[in-house]
Amino acid sequence: MRVDLGNALDTVAAPGVSRDALDRLDERVADAHERIEAGRENHEHGYAALNLPETTDADEIRTAVEPFADAETVLTVGIGGSALGAATLARGLDSDVDAYFLDNVDPEHVSALLDGISLSDTAINVVSRSGTTAETLANFLVVRDAMASEGVDWTERTFVTTGEDGNLRTLAERHDLPALAVPDGVPGRFSVLSTVGLACAAIQGRDIDAVLAGARAEVDRLAGSLFESPAYAYGAACYALDERGAGVNAMMPYAESLETFAEWFAQLWAESLGKDGLGQTPARALGATDQHSQLQLYRAGPRDKMVTFVRPADRDDRAIPETDLPGLEYLGGRNLGTLLDAEFGATEASLAASGRPNVRVEIDRIDEYGLGELCYGMEAACVLAGELYGVETFVQPAVEWGKRAARGLLGGGDFEEAEAVAEKTTLEVE
Amino acid sequence: MRVDLGNALDTVAAPGVSRDALDRLDERVADAHERIEAGRENHEHGYAALNLPETTDADEIRTAVEPFADAETVLTVGIGGSALGAATLARGLDSDVDAYFLDNVDPEHVSALLDGISLSDTAINVVSRSGTTAETLANFLVVRDAMASEGVDWTERTFVTTGEDGNLRTLAERHDLPALAVPDGVPGRFSVLSTVGLACAAIQGRDIDAVLAGARAEVDRLAGSLFESPAYAYGAACYALDERGAGVNAMMPYAESLETFAEWFAQLWAESLGKDGLGQTPARALGATDQHSQLQLYRAGPRDKMVTFVRPADRDDRAIPETDLPGLEYLGGRNLGTLLDAEFGATEASLAASGRPNVRVEIDRIDEYGLGELCYGMEAACVLAGELYGVETFVQPAVEWGKRAARGLLGGGDFEEAEAVAEKTTLEVE
Repeated sequence: MRVDLGNALDTVAAPGVSRDALDRLDERVADAHERIEAGRENHEHGYAALNLPETTDADEIRTAVEPFADAETVLTVGIGGSALGAATLARGLDSDVDAYFLDNVDPEHVSALLDGISLSDTAINVVSRSGTTAETLANFLVVRDAMASEGVDWTERTFVTTGEDGNLRTLAERHDLPALAVPDGVPGRFSVLSTVGLACAAIQGRDIDAVLAGARAEVDRLAGSLFESPAYAYGAACYALDERGAGVNAMMPYAESLETFAEWFAQLWAESLGKDGLGQTPARALGATDQHSQLQLYRAGPRDKMVTFVRPADRDDRAIPETDLPGLEYLGGRNLGTLLDAEFGATEASLAASGRPNVRVEIDRIDEYGLGELCYGMEAACVLAGELYGVETFVQPAVEWGKRAARGLLGGGDFEEAEAVAEKTTLEVE
Repeated sequence: MRVDLGNALDTVAAPGVSRDALDRLDERVADAHERIEAGRENHEHGYAALNLPETTDADEIRTAVEPFADAETVLTVGIGGSALGAATLARGLDSDVDAYFLDNVDPEHVSALLDGISLSDTAINVVSRSGTTAETLANFLVVRDAMASEGVDWTERTFVTTGEDGNLRTLAERHDLPALAVPDGVPGRFSVLSTVGLACAAIQGRDIDAVLAGARAEVDRLAGSLFESPAYAYGAACYALDERGAGVNAMMPYAESLETFAEWFAQLWAESLGKDGLGQTPARALGATDQHSQLQLYRAGPRDKMVTFVRPADRDDRAIPETDLPGLEYLGGRNLGTLLDAEFGATEASLAASGRPNVRVEIDRIDEYGLGELCYGMEAACVLAGELYGVETFVQPAVEWGKRAARGLLGGGDFEEAEAVAEKTTLEVE
C-alpha cells in the first residue's frame, strides 16, 4: 500500500496540514506506535487484531470448509463486522462460486434471496461471536426452515463461526456442525483477516494465504514515523485534517470491485472513532460514477471534508473500439482503463485546484495480496487514529441502547429503553 | 409521503429547531413556494422538472419500447442522472426482466457484466442528454462491439434517450433507432419521472402510470406552508438543521430495495445544493444493517449530522420459525418485518435519547405509487431547500473543470486543466 499526502498539505488545500505540523504530529505517532506494539505483544483486546496476519491458521479454515468443496454458492448469515469483511473480499475477487450475504432482516429481501439460490448447492456460514445477534439468528431460523422445505438436510450444508459459547456453539455441538472460532480480542470490524473474513473466500477457492501475505507486508511497513509507514501516514493525515475541519471522509475508490471495501471502511472508521463527540463521518463514493453525483459538492460545498482515493496501479483492461462518430475520435482505439485513469487524475487535480484536501491510496492490483494490504493498512490507520484522538477504539457502547430497546419491543425482556420508543415526540405533516 | 419532524425539534435534539423558528421559517417557505409555482408555470429550467408528473407522456414511452417486449434483460448505458433514476425504480420494483446499468468505465466491471448477460435478449438504452458524455459513449462503443462479436444486430436491440442533437441523435437518425427525447428544462438528477427514468421500468413491465400518479399526489400536497406540505417540511427541516450545525444528512432507509434510492437522493442533494460553500453532505446508510456500522458514530460522534429514516408502512412479511434454542424464544413465531420495525423504532428512539436530530419519512408501500411520491417529494424538498439556501439549484458548474482535464489528458483537445494534473504536489509514503 502506498499513500500520497501531497494534496493534504496546506500549500494545496484548506483545510490542509503543514509540513511542520506533520513533523510535530510525528512525535505523537512514534508514541502511539509504541503503545500499539505493546498492545500487539500482549495480545490486548483490539490490538490483537493487528496480529491476525501472523496468528490466523489458514489450514484450519480450509479444513473446516472442506465439506463444502462442491458448493456452487456460499451464503453468509451475519451482520456488521460478521459480514462486511467477507463481503469485501468476495466483491473484490472473482469466483465461480457466488457469494451472498444475509446481513439485514428485510423480509422481502430475504425471500427474494432465498428464492433465487439453490439451497442444496449452497454452503451456509452463520457468523456471530456472541451467538445471540437477533438479526442473524432470526435469519438463520428462516434459512433453516427454507432448507427443510426444500428437503435439504441443513446439518449437511451449515457451518458456524462463533465464540466459545452461546447459541451457535450449542447448536454446532448438538448437530456436529463444522465450527470455526472467532479469535479472542478481535472486534468484528477488525476480523476480516480471521476465520470471520476468510472462510467465505476459502469456499470460493481464493488464495487466503495471499491475503494474509499482503497483510504481513503491511505489518512490516509499520514504523515509529508516519513518513515511513503508509498506514500511519493515512491515519495521521485523516486525524490532522479532521482537527482542521474535515469532519467528513469521503472514501472514493476508482474500482467497482472496491465498492464493498468502502462500506467495510465506513464501519471500521465510524464505529471505532465515532465516540466522545469525535470521529470523522465516512461517506461512500465511487469513481468515476460519483463525479457525476458528489463532485460538485466536494469541490464547491463546505470545506468540511476530505476525499480518499483508492485505486489499483494495474488492472485488466478493455479496448474502446474505433469510431467515426464525430467528436468521439479521441476515445476510439483507447482503453476503458485509460479513460478511468484520466478521470481519476482529472478529479484528483480538480479537487486540488479548488483547494480541497485529498489523499491517494494505491495498491498494485485488486487481488488477494492487494486486498490484504489494503484492509490491514486501513485497520492500522484506524488504530493509530484512535490513539491520536484518545478514544477507546475497540468498543461500541452507543449501540447497546437500541439493542435493549428492540429486544424490549419484541417481548424479549423488560427494558426501560423500550418504553421511550412509545413516547416519541411527533410533528407530523401529511 | 408523510414526514414527522418531532425528533428534529430543539426539545429533543441538539442541533434542533424550535417551533418558533419553524414558524418564522414558514414565512420564507411561503415566498419560496410562490417562486417555485411561478417557475413551474413558466416552465423555467429546473422548475420544469416539477411538472413532469403532468407533462410526461407514458404512452410515448411505452410505444418507444414496444420493440423490446421480448427482452429478458434491459441494460441502461448512462451515468449520474442518466442512470440513477431508472436504477432507483428498478431496485425498488421486482420484475422478471433483469435491469443492469453501465454507469462506470471500470474495464473489469464492464467485461464481467457483458460476459454475464445474453446480448441477443437484451434491450440497450443509451442515455445522455448531450450525446457526448465520455463514459457513456465509450461504454456504448464497447457494448456495440460486443454485440457484433456475438452476431447480434445492434440496431435491432438499441434505443436512445437523448437531446435534440448530438452524437446519439445523429446515430439514432442514421440507423433508424427508436429514440426518446430528454425533456427540456429537466436536469439529469431531476429526470426520474421523465423518459430518462421511466423507459427501463416500462420494459420491465412495471406500471409507469402509477409512478406518475404517486408523484401527482405529491404535487397536490405542495402548499405555501411547511406544516401543510410533507416535501417542504422535509426540505425546510434539513435546511434549518444544517444552519444549526447538521452539515451531514445520513439517508437511512429501512428497506433493502431503497438502497439505490439513497444513492439517487445523494446525487440530488449533493449536486443541487453543494455550491457557494453551502449544502449538506449526504451519507448513505441502510437499516437495520448499519445499526451495526454507523450508529455508534451517529449517537456518540460529533453533533454535525441528522439522520433521515425512510420506511414503508407496510410490506410483504415472512415468518420466523419457532425455536427451542435458549434465549431466542422471543424471536420465534414472530415476523422478520416485526423485527425490522422494532429495530427501526429502537434506532429512532436511541438517536432521540442521545439528542441527535432525525426525521421520519414514510410511504405506504414500496411500489410504483410509493416510489413516485417519494422521488417527487424529495425533488420538491430539494428545490425548496435550494430557494432557502439561495443557491442555483439546477446547475453543476464545479464538475466542468475535471471534464476538461480528462478530455485534455485523453488528447481530445488543448485544455490548460490537463496540465495541472501533471503538476501534482506529492508526499509519498511507501
